[in-house]
Order: sequence, then structure tokens, then C-alpha cells
Amino acid sequence: MSARRPSDELHPWEIRESVLDLELLAQRESVFALSNGHIGLRGTFDEGEPHGLPGTYLNGVYETRPLPYAEAGYGFPEDGQTVVNVTNGKVIRLLVDDEPFDIRYGDLLSHRRVLDMRAGTLEREAEWRSPAGQAVRVRSVRLVSLVQRSVAAVLWEVEPLDGPARIVVQSELVANEVQPESPSMDPRAAAALRAPLVNEFAGALEERVTLVHRTRVSGLLVGAAMDHAVEGPDGTATHSEVEDDLGRVTVVTDLREGSTLRLEKFLAYGWSAERSLPAVRDQVEAALVEARHAGWDELLASQRETLDDFWAGADVELDGDLEIQQAVRFGIFHTMQAGARAERRAIPAKGLTGPGYDGHAFWDTETFVLPLLTYSLPHAAAAALNWRHSTLPLARERARTLNLGGAAMPWRTIAGEECSAYWPAGTAAFHVSADVADAVIRYVHVTDDRDFEREAGIELLVETARLWHSLGHHDPGGGFRIDGVTGPDEYSAVSDNNIYTNLMAQRNLLGAAEAAERHPERARELGVDDEEVAAWVYAAREVRIPYDERLGVHEQSDEFTRHQEWDFEATVDHYPLLLHFPYFQLYRKQVLKQPDLVLAMHLRGDAFTDEQKLRNFDYYERRTVRDSSLSACTQAVMAAEVGYVELAYDYLAEAALVDLDDLNSNTRDGVHIASLAGSWIACVAGLGGMRDHDGHLSFAPRLPGDLSRLAFRLCLHGSRLVVEVGHEQASYELHSGGPLEVSHHGRPFVLEPGSPVTLPVPPAPGRERPAQPPGREPRSRQGDARRSGAG
Amino acid sequence: MSARRPSDELHPWEIRESVLDLELLAQRESVFALSNGHIGLRGTFDEGEPHGLPGTYLNGVYETRPLPYAEAGYGFPEDGQTVVNVTNGKVIRLLVDDEPFDIRYGDLLSHRRVLDMRAGTLEREAEWRSPAGQAVRVRSVRLVSLVQRSVAAVLWEVEPLDGPARIVVQSELVANEVQPESPSMDPRAAAALRAPLVNEFAGALEERVTLVHRTRVSGLLVGAAMDHAVEGPDGTATHSEVEDDLGRVTVVTDLREGSTLRLEKFLAYGWSAERSLPAVRDQVEAALVEARHAGWDELLASQRETLDDFWAGADVELDGDLEIQQAVRFGIFHTMQAGARAERRAIPAKGLTGPGYDGHAFWDTETFVLPLLTYSLPHAAAAALNWRHSTLPLARERARTLNLGGAAMPWRTIAGEECSAYWPAGTAAFHVSADVADAVIRYVHVTDDRDFEREAGIELLVETARLWHSLGHHDPGGGFRIDGVTGPDEYSAVSDNNIYTNLMAQRNLLGAAEAAERHPERARELGVDDEEVAAWVYAAREVRIPYDERLGVHEQSDEFTRHQEWDFEATVDHYPLLLHFPYFQLYRKQVLKQPDLVLAMHLRGDAFTDEQKLRNFDYYERRTVRDSSLSACTQAVMAAEVGYVELAYDYLAEAALVDLDDLNSNTRDGVHIASLAGSWIACVAGLGGMRDHDGHLSFAPRLPGDLSRLAFRLCLHGSRLVVEVGHEQASYELHSGGPLEVSHHGRPFVLEPGSPVTLPVPPAPGRERPAQPPGREPRSRQGDARRSGAG
Repeated sequence: MSARRPSDELHPWEIRESVLDLELLAQRESVFALSNGHIGLRGTFDEGEPHGLPGTYLNGVYETRPLPYAEAGYGFPEDGQTVVNVTNGKVIRLLVDDEPFDIRYGDLLSHRRVLDMRAGTLEREAEWRSPAGQAVRVRSVRLVSLVQRSVAAVLWEVEPLDGPARIVVQSELVANEVQPESPSMDPRAAAALRAPLVNEFAGALEERVTLVHRTRVSGLLVGAAMDHAVEGPDGTATHSEVEDDLGRVTVVTDLREGSTLRLEKFLAYGWSAERSLPAVRDQVEAALVEARHAGWDELLASQRETLDDFWAGADVELDGDLEIQQAVRFGIFHTMQAGARAERRAIPAKGLTGPGYDGHAFWDTETFVLPLLTYSLPHAAAAALNWRHSTLPLARERARTLNLGGAAMPWRTIAGEECSAYWPAGTAAFHVSADVADAVIRYVHVTDDRDFEREAGIELLVETARLWHSLGHHDPGGGFRIDGVTGPDEYSAVSDNNIYTNLMAQRNLLGAAEAAERHPERARELGVDDEEVAAWVYAAREVRIPYDERLGVHEQSDEFTRHQEWDFEATVDHYPLLLHFPYFQLYRKQVLKQPDLVLAMHLRGDAFTDEQKLRNFDYYERRTVRDSSLSACTQAVMAAEVGYVELAYDYLAEAALVDLDDLNSNTRDGVHIASLAGSWIACVAGLGGMRDHDGHLSFAPRLPGDLSRLAFRLCLHGSRLVVEVGHEQASYELHSGGPLEVSHHGRPFVLEPGSPVTLPVPPAPGRERPAQPPGREPRSRQGDARRSGAG
Repeated sequence: MSARRPSDELHPWEIRESVLDLELLAQRESVFALSNGHIGLRGTFDEGEPHGLPGTYLNGVYETRPLPYAEAGYGFPEDGQTVVNVTNGKVIRLLVDDEPFDIRYGDLLSHRRVLDMRAGTLEREAEWRSPAGQAVRVRSVRLVSLVQRSVAAVLWEVEPLDGPARIVVQSELVANEVQPESPSMDPRAAAALRAPLVNEFAGALEERVTLVHRTRVSGLLVGAAMDHAVEGPDGTATHSEVEDDLGRVTVVTDLREGSTLRLEKFLAYGWSAERSLPAVRDQVEAALVEARHAGWDELLASQRETLDDFWAGADVELDGDLEIQQAVRFGIFHTMQAGARAERRAIPAKGLTGPGYDGHAFWDTETFVLPLLTYSLPHAAAAALNWRHSTLPLARERARTLNLGGAAMPWRTIAGEECSAYWPAGTAAFHVSADVADAVIRYVHVTDDRDFEREAGIELLVETARLWHSLGHHDPGGGFRIDGVTGPDEYSAVSDNNIYTNLMAQRNLLGAAEAAERHPERARELGVDDEEVAAWVYAAREVRIPYDERLGVHEQSDEFTRHQEWDFEATVDHYPLLLHFPYFQLYRKQVLKQPDLVLAMHLRGDAFTDEQKLRNFDYYERRTVRDSSLSACTQAVMAAEVGYVELAYDYLAEAALVDLDDLNSNTRDGVHIASLAGSWIACVAGLGGMRDHDGHLSFAPRLPGDLSRLAFRLCLHGSRLVVEVGHEQASYELHSGGPLEVSHHGRPFVLEPGSPVTLPVPPAPGRERPAQPPGREPRSRQGDARRSGAG
């Protein structure tokens, strides 16, 4: 766990870096990454070096690599997909009086970076004196356009500070950048990724350069182009050149003190698995024309306008704790960046901020990311679900391979094919299919988007319902069992009747039945008949829910509570456990990596009584080590529901600070989009107590001591609901549409637009918080809130 | 399933090949392999080609190769061990009038091979006419000495049949033979094995050549040497030469019709991980001197003498079915070959007959091979157990890695290190440790070898008991649970309270307690105190045995009988299932690869009532597909016990014919030692009904209709018990020692040496045999017995 950031870096709308630490370069590159969900640029310096882990990503561009098995089995995927670092267009090198601008040499007089979450920009300003004694100020502002999906741009300026300087600037496109290799990777896989791009076209015209490459094995065409508007004193000259893996525009000028060389660099990216080389080249060059046509100022203005709009519907305000206010907005911002323009591509676990998890998307997207997008940026949620819909042919094929009906969503993938090489914590985690269905059901309830439901939603529901129907069976007593699968908790695997899986399958089966009823014609097209619907409903009704009468708690899966207890006292210095203990020991004992049953109590809270929730939470809280970053937000939600509001806030803080404070020491590989989105969930579903079972909205807000006010917004059926929570009361205001039935702490009421309703917040029950495994208590936030700052 | 062999190949003591089929070369190389447990020579032709899969093995000589994982986990073994094809000393090439003797060219006038199981030799005789028209008779007899452990020898003769011939013979040692590569192997592993031997020494002196190589990564020194006695007409000349990977002695002569060139080729092998190059060289050259000193005739005579001795204590006679008589002796012979002189090295699953399973030893050795050796060649059983004892430091280290106490025996290994790369069907199959303990307990009961028990046996029992004590735990009701492990059935994995595992662990825990009581001082040395013994006994007493009250059958493991039934009708064309269905489907349904609970009913028959055995057998029989060659013998044993004697005989035949008829189409990779040993078990424990729980011998013999008589021998406490079974009665005779308490069909009696006891065999119950999964019924033997033959 790294040190907390200095107070002067706290700001409600900006992520600031006031001190440069070369050890943290890679982590900061992730934090400062810019993305629109289509293009992702890690926050490397314009001058390219020093760097931590350089990275430029295009959503959906991957290389294929062999998945090795010492002992293979039927149905093990043969090929993996790994995100590749595409052509880097961020590079703007500077030579000052023949000295390369490199902050590792000479004197860095000042250095400051700001990620502005309202502007959607990364700013950087450095004052540097070269070893030869020439001081310059370099300033850049970078953006990845939320409006022009294929475009990124950099405003770059240099100014001599003490006397004239000879300046050479090299603005580049670099393909097949040399990258640090992961020591844990199989050497054949590493080799496959070493220089994944094969040049297909390279051309330069005035200040424009275009490079088109093809990925070696997966065969995707990737185009990158740059153009420039250069403003400098008379005599400023430019020329361009191009090689297979390098495009370069060189600007040379002499600057007096106080004069400035200004570069607007426009970047365009495009790729295709289908289109021809000329088509891809034209596409990026056209995007570039559009970008230059708009110009830097217009790109900047439209970026802010888009974000103003976004924040109006998505902002969460936490008064009284500037650090968490900043962190929660950071979480919302990165989630928006990951999903805004993904447009029928996956939203990976790291967004486009780093190569972690090979760039794969998991169930995290539907379960943790889509709730935020559904309530804040619904078209992005629809796009993500449409991506899943587009992968149905692959998911059906996978189900056939597995001897199952319907469609089996992949555990991890970029393009839709299953890429998981360890099936007990991959293929067996079938719940991903129910998580997709849950996201479909939520999206349709929240947006009332019947077109989506008819065109894509129902097919996702029907095919996943068919999966569950073939995966489970009725035992002699009639109970519907789902045996030998893995739930969310990755310290358990391949067990019978995992409650989370069973309850989510139940929702899936009923959701499919309801969708078929709403769209009978479409259902017929999909081959659904009454008998099939009846079978789904029967299976859903009889789903087995294991419960331990002796302890009065639910079993995460059959027999779980009879398994041996983990000896937490003996392993207090051995977190994360998976690096110190074999799976077989983790699987067979009562130790949880992350909430499983407790997540079921959030998403399927309608299936538990209050008493059960409290007893279950206490039981599993003692056994959950939070070795997954998907833990804290769910624990926040359920802690809040059962009455531990301060504990909920501790977990909220952990979810929100995961990357800013690098809590898991792996932010270098990319930010944790699901945990960041989870900080929104922790605010809205945790402190706000929001639930949306069967489309019915309910709230049970309660504030921790450190906060004076919480406010959040939800987009609903094209309207907007604003919830404001204080210690004594909460108010609800609908901005349009309606009327809307909601409930507050169990009390139903109707909201009309323009007529806010204010209701008292009942006092929290005086419960002593339960214990966690020794050494895994969350950092306590009580009295720790940081109220002042630079904001 | 290949065709049955022609009748003229049946013989009670010989395996005959009367027709040469080039498609079957590799399978026949396994069948005709010779071994003494230290050296293994596949049955390739003297002239080297054509060949199927050339192979020469030295027990314990392996190469290390990386085990690749696409997703690795803590405790996954990093390195594998693979048996390597060492220097081939079998090669004797022949040139007849400048034409190489190769049966693929010219005319093969006659060809005959015989594996003589009393002589311990492989004979071959070929009459061949070269493309140029010169006919010769080539005859060879090959043996791997059971007396001189490091020695093999070949008597080789050539004689022209029609007119004089110019003859050149090249007798060779060939290292790094080019081998067909397995297409399924990871390319890095294949590369590691392509030329595993690095030359360290090569020398020739007269007709003697010595080569010493080192394995590239594992660093083992391997010495091979040959010497020759040549007898030919005047003018016969020899010379020798040597290269890094080739030693050659060339004999040149002119033969008249009717005259013969005779070569006695002596081979010596030795290897060491510790000793120096000069020491290894000296060792093989000394062995060679000893072999030449004895000479061919003496080697041949001592081989037969050793085998006469062996058969006197090990033979099983089945009158009335020559095919099975031959096959059972073949099984006993290969089991003897695998174990006779293994001497503190593992007995691999394929013996030294092929590279299958990488040359690894599994639990098969203790469970299927050692019963035969214990009752027939007890010093070989002791040597195998002493090998396990020598690996205890590695097994303790493995247990520590797995966070367990005591010692965890490897699932598969050559040198003792765990080499299993798929833990659910590897490391999780902890029963291997109890199987070792069971073999120790049996060996001590049968031999009364207290020295072994004190020196090695007790330590094996104590360390494996400690493993179980740390692996299980007492649940709140006191029951001792062993969760998350894999039993023998590899179509189930990682389940709770596998009955086989629990019952074998129980025997292990009690066996350790009893050994500690018998050897209190030694137990103290091992750190055993009264409390530890009490804990073992308590755990053993409380071991959980899952039982389904509803069905009245035991559950293979918790919840097994509630799992979904396999749809056998739909998969009738998809055997073996593991090549057509993913593990996750196999694991979660009621389908068995091989007996598990049914094996427990054999080995721990004392834990079940007769009624339970019958109900359980019928239940599991319908769900067992016998995709493992370890199935049939156990099904034979339990079918016989519960009253299905004809079914038992069908299974006996399947176990015995596995390699002669290549029933699993993989004999090319080596014979199935455990199934072959299992055919002995099927005779003795199946038809003979022999059990030895707690050292008490009992019998319940019963013959199938096709047999008129069964006789078998058991070595007991240095004495010999002969059992003769007819349809009406059975007789028991003790040759020395005694008195011995035994029982016959539940009736106890005392045997005195020289006073045979004859008792009536009660009629079999008239039960209809249970069904097997469709398509997996055993080949019915009834009326199919082959009574005549060449014998």
C-alpha cells in the first residue's frame, strides 16, 4: 500500500501531480491515461522517455498467441488474445541547443501535471534547464476526443526562459515500440507480442504522415495518422519523413526569450478486420481532415461541453471529505472514458489504460461498470450490451463445445472467443452469462428502450436462459441444481449450487420468460414456445438455495460451512493468499477472495430477509480477505444495508482510492475500472441504499459521520432523478417525466417532476461492526476525512 | 479394438507372431519388449528398421523439461521429467552381397517371433531373399538378464540359403536416435527431448565399444558398452570404430551355403546422478567383462533358472481357455519384468516398454502392481517401497509447499518430484499416499519383514498419516472430513469426502498407529507421541462415509448421487469421453471413468456389508465407462464377489488382453503394467475371492463356465500356499511354515504344511448381471473361450 498523496494534490475536479517520482511513472501513466473507449493513450510524457510502460491502445486490436498446456483437455481454448501496443502518436521530442529534453538530465526547475476531469484533458508544464544551461518552459495539453471518436490531439508549446534557443521538434508516429516484457509470460507468447505490427503502408505529405500496419497473426489492419498546425517565428521550417515503423515531422526554429513555438498535433486512428488497406488509410486520413477542420480550440471546447453534459447526469457530490470526493469523481471519469465511445466493442477490465489482464473484458463490465453507465450514460451501456449481442454466434459455438444449450459467454476475451486457460476459474464461472442477462434487464427497466430489448436484449436473455436450463437439472425432489460451477469468489471453485450463480440464473430464466411474453413474435422467431418458457419458470421456481440450519446462515455453495476454517492468524503476512497457497487449499476451506453470497445479497436482495442479510454478512465478513479489487464496493453496499455505515464508508474509500493510492501495487498495468465504477456503486447503492429489483427503485440513504452531504443523479427513462442526502433527511427531485414510484427506507411514495420530496432519515441501528480476517481490516476512515485541499 | 490374434499364435507359455504386419510394428515392440526393471529394450528388429517407436530405457534416466502454463498458480510444478530413449545397443545391421537386410525390400520368405516366458527371451527367425536374389536365414535370441542386472545380450546368426554370400555385419551403439515426435507435445518440451544426450566419452578396444553421455538438463551420466564374441569361417575379420553418438563393430566374412556367422553381443548399461565419468565408464565395462565371462549359454541358462523359480511361486493356471491362460501369464511376465530388478527406482505405468505417460510412475504401482509382487516376488515389492521411502524428503517438501503436514507422494514422477501439471487430476489425488501406506501394510503382513517395517515402513506410514491428519478436519459433529480431493475416478475431481480416499486414509491412520505401537522406540525417533497416535485413531474412527438413504447406496463422494445423470444414449459413439467432453461436464455428472467406490469395496471390503456391496456395485456399474485401463480388473473382483462370476470373467479377459489385443489402441506407447498385473488380481482376488484385510487371508473361489480349473500360488512368510479351484470344490495346500488360518467362503480353517484341505464351493447366486453404459458392455467371454491352440 503506497503512501497517501500530499494534500496540495487534492482537488474536487482535478487529479494533480505536484511532485515527480520516477519510481511511480508507470502507475501515473495509468492514472493519467486518456481514453474515449475507442482510443487509449497512457500518460507517458510527450518526449517519450523516461517512461514506465508505454502504451497506446485501440479497442478491439489484439494479437493472437498460443495458450500452452502441459496437460491439455477437451475444450481448452487453444489461442489467447492479447491487447497490443499500437502505433504511438504521442511522441513529440525536443532538442534545445542540441540537447535532448529529458528530465533525467539537466535541472527540472518545476513539473506539474493535471488531469482535468471537467475539461477532459491532461495538462503538463515543465520548466527545465538543459545540462548546457538553457532553460525552457514546455507545456502541453492532450485530449482524446469524446466527440470525434477517431481523434486525439495535443497542444504543445515551448518557450525559452533565459535567452535565445535553437529548437528542433520531432513529432512522431512510432510502431513496434520496444516494451518491457513481463517475466511471468510464457516465452512463446512474449515472442508473439514482441513486434506484432507488420508495415503495410507508409506515406508522408507536408506535415501529415500515415502508417498502416497489420497485426502479424490476427491480421487486423491498424491505421494511424498525424497532422500538424505549426505556429512559430519567421524562419520556422518543417519537413516530414517516413519509414516502415516511423513517421516523423521535424520542426526547426530559433526562438527568442518570450517567444513561443506552438504545435497543434492531430492524431487519427482506425482499424478493421474486414476493410481493405486503402479503406483503412482513407478512414484515418479523413478523420484527420475533420480534426484539423475543427482545430484545437474547437476540439477542446466540444470536449468540455460533452463533459458538462455528462457530469450533469452522473456527478456524485460528497461534502466533507475532499479526498474521497476527488477519488469518486476520478472513478466516474475513468469509467466514462472506458465506455463512452466503445461502441460495440468490449469494455476491458483496465479500460484502455494498460495491458493488465491481457486487455480482456470479464464479468466486471456487466456487474460493476454497466450500472454506472446505465444510470449515467445509457447509450454507452446499450453499446456494451450490443457488443455482447454481436458475440452470440461465438457464445453459441462455445456452448456447443461444452455440450450445453444456448450461449455461454466467455470468461475473458477481447473479440468474443473464450481465452481462459484455467477452466476452474474461467469456463466454470458460468455466472458471467447471468451477469450479462442482469445488465440487459436493468438497462431495459431503466431506459425503457424497447427497441433494444426487441432487437438484442431478448436474444441475449433467451440464449442465456437456455444455457442455464441445460446446465442445471432437477433432482429427485424437484429442486433445480446447478452443479460443478464457480461463483464470483475465486477462492472457491467448481462447487454445487453456488447461491450467487443460482439466484442470478433464476433472474435470468424469469427475465427471459418475461421478455418472451412482452415480445411474442420475436420470441417465436427465436424458437421459443410455451413449453420452453414453462420449463424456465419451473427451473427458476425450484432453484436450490443452500442454507445451514445449524448456523442460521446461507452456504455460499453446498457444504461450504462444513469446510475447514482458514487459519487466518497463521497467514497474516501472506496476502494475497493466492501467491502463497495452492488453489486446492484455498478452494476447500472457508476463505473468500471476494464477496460471493454477499454480492448475491446486493444484486438479489429480494431473495433474502433482513435478518438473513445481517447474519450472512457477519459470517462471511470474517472470512473474506479482499484479495480481489472487486471486493470493497460490494462490502460497502451490504455493510450499509445491514447497518454498518462507517464500515461501508471505509470500503467505499478503499474502492475509490484503489488506483490513486495504488492499493494493490498493480496500477502500473492499468486502472481498475470495476473498482472505480464500484466506488459509484458504493455511494449510490451503499450510502444511498439504491436498489432496482424488478425495475422498482428504492432508497435507504444514511451518511457516515465524516460526510455532511451526499448528492447523486440517476438518468431514468430519459429523465433525471437527483437525490440529496443529509444526516437528518433526504430529498428526491425528478427533473422531468414521471410520475415515478420510489421508496425511501421501505416507505413508498410518488415523485412528480418539479415537486421534490423530503423525508427523514431514520437513525442507524447501534451495531458493533463485525471483524475481518486479521490483517485485512479496511483502513478506517473515521476522523480521517481530508476536508481541506487545493480545490 | 483390434482384431483377435490367429489361433496358431495361442500358446500357454509363448507369445507368438506368425504373421508380420508393418502397421502393428509399434504395438508389437511393446508386447515383445524385454526388461529386468533396470534396462528396457523395446522389441525392435535387430537391423533397426523398419521400426515403430524405437526405445531403450534405463529406469530412472529422464530429462527435465519445462511445464508450460498459460495461467500458472502457486505450487504448480515448474519442471517435468520425461523418460529418454538412451543409447540403443540392439542394432545389428546386415549387408548381404551389398544389399542391406530390410524386410521392406526383397522377399520375406518366412518371419516368426516368439516371446518365451519361461526362457525370458525374444526369438526371431527370418528367411529373406534380397532384391538381387540371395536368400539368407537370420536368427536372433535376445535377453535382458534377470541375474546380471546391467546386462543384456543377443545371440545373432546368419546363414546363406542358396549359394555363397558376402556378409557384412555392423553391430552398433546409437545415441540420440531420431524418433517420431508426438504431435500433441508442447514444442518446447519436444525440443528439450530431441537430442537429450551429450557425449562425454567414446572409446573402442577390439570388439568392445563404450559410450558415456550426459543428459543435457538433468545431468545424468549414462554409460553403454558392447562387446562381442564372433564365430565365423576363416577369414572373418572385425574392426571397431567410434564417434560421439555411434559405436560400431563391423564383421566381414564370406559364407558358403550351410555355414553360419554367429555373433554373441553383450551389452552393459549403467547410469548415475552422482558418480564420475570414470566411475560410470568402469561400471559398464566391468559389467561387460562379467557378461562375457559368463557367456551366452550361461546367461541363457541362468535366465531360465530364475524364471523357473519365479513361475513356481507366481504361476496362475486357467484350464479350459488357452487364450486367457496365455494372456494372464503374459501379464504376470511383464509385471515381473517391470519390477524384478527395479531396485529402489520407480516402477513406471508402462514399465520400461515404452515412453507412454512420459515414463512416470503413478498410484498404479502400489495398488495394482505391488499385490502381485508382494505375493510372488516379495523382494521386488520391498525394493519398490524402499524407493518410495527414499523419496520421503521430496514428499515432505511437497507437503510443505501445499501447506500440509507429513509427506505428500507425487501423483506422477520418475525421480520423486511432483510432475503433474493439472492439479485437479494430479496433486488433488492425494489417495496415492494412502495407496503407498496400504502397500506397506500388505507387504509387512504377507512377509512379516519386520526389518523393513522398522527401517522404512513405519516412516512411510507415519508421514502419510500426518498428511491425512493435516488434510482432513473434524466438522462440528466430530465427523472427520477430507474435502476438495480427487479419488481414483478421473471423471470426478476435487470433491468432498471421496469414500475411497476416506477409507484408505482410515487404513493409513490406523496402520501408522499400529506400527508405532509395534516399534515404540522408532516411533519416538520419528517424533510420534501418544497424543499424535490418539489423534490418528480418533480421525480414523470418525471418518465420514457419505451414504444416500433415499437410494440405499453409498455416494462416491458428497452429493454424488444428486448430480445429473450422464446421457449415455447420446454419447454411445464418443468413447473415451474425455476426448469429446470437457472435464467440467464429466466432473459434475454421474459418470465414472473407472471404479472408485467399487475399488474401495475391494480394498476396504471390511467396511461394507454384503448387501451394500451388491447395491453399490449395481448402481455404479451402470455409470462406469471404463475409459481407464485400471477399470476391468477391479470390476472383475467385485463382480465375482457379489455373484456375477461370468461378468467377472469377461472383465478378467479384458484386463488380460489389453495389450495383446491392443484394446485401447495405445499399446504402441508401452504395455499397461497395472492392467496386466490386474489380470492376476482378477484371477486371485476375483475368481479366487482372495482378501487380506488386516493380514487375514480369506478366499471365496468360484469358476466361470468356461474354465475347468484355476490354480494359483501365493508366497507367504517365506512359505508357499497353492490354491486349486474346480467347479465343485477347492483345495488349499501349504508347502512349508504355518500353521496358517485362512477362510473359505466365510468358513475359517487352519492349514498345516503338507496337509491339503479340500472344501466344497457353494453355488453362485442366480443373479441377472447388471447393465453397463450402452456401448461399454464388456466383450462376452461365455462360449468364446479358445480351448485349442499351438501349445
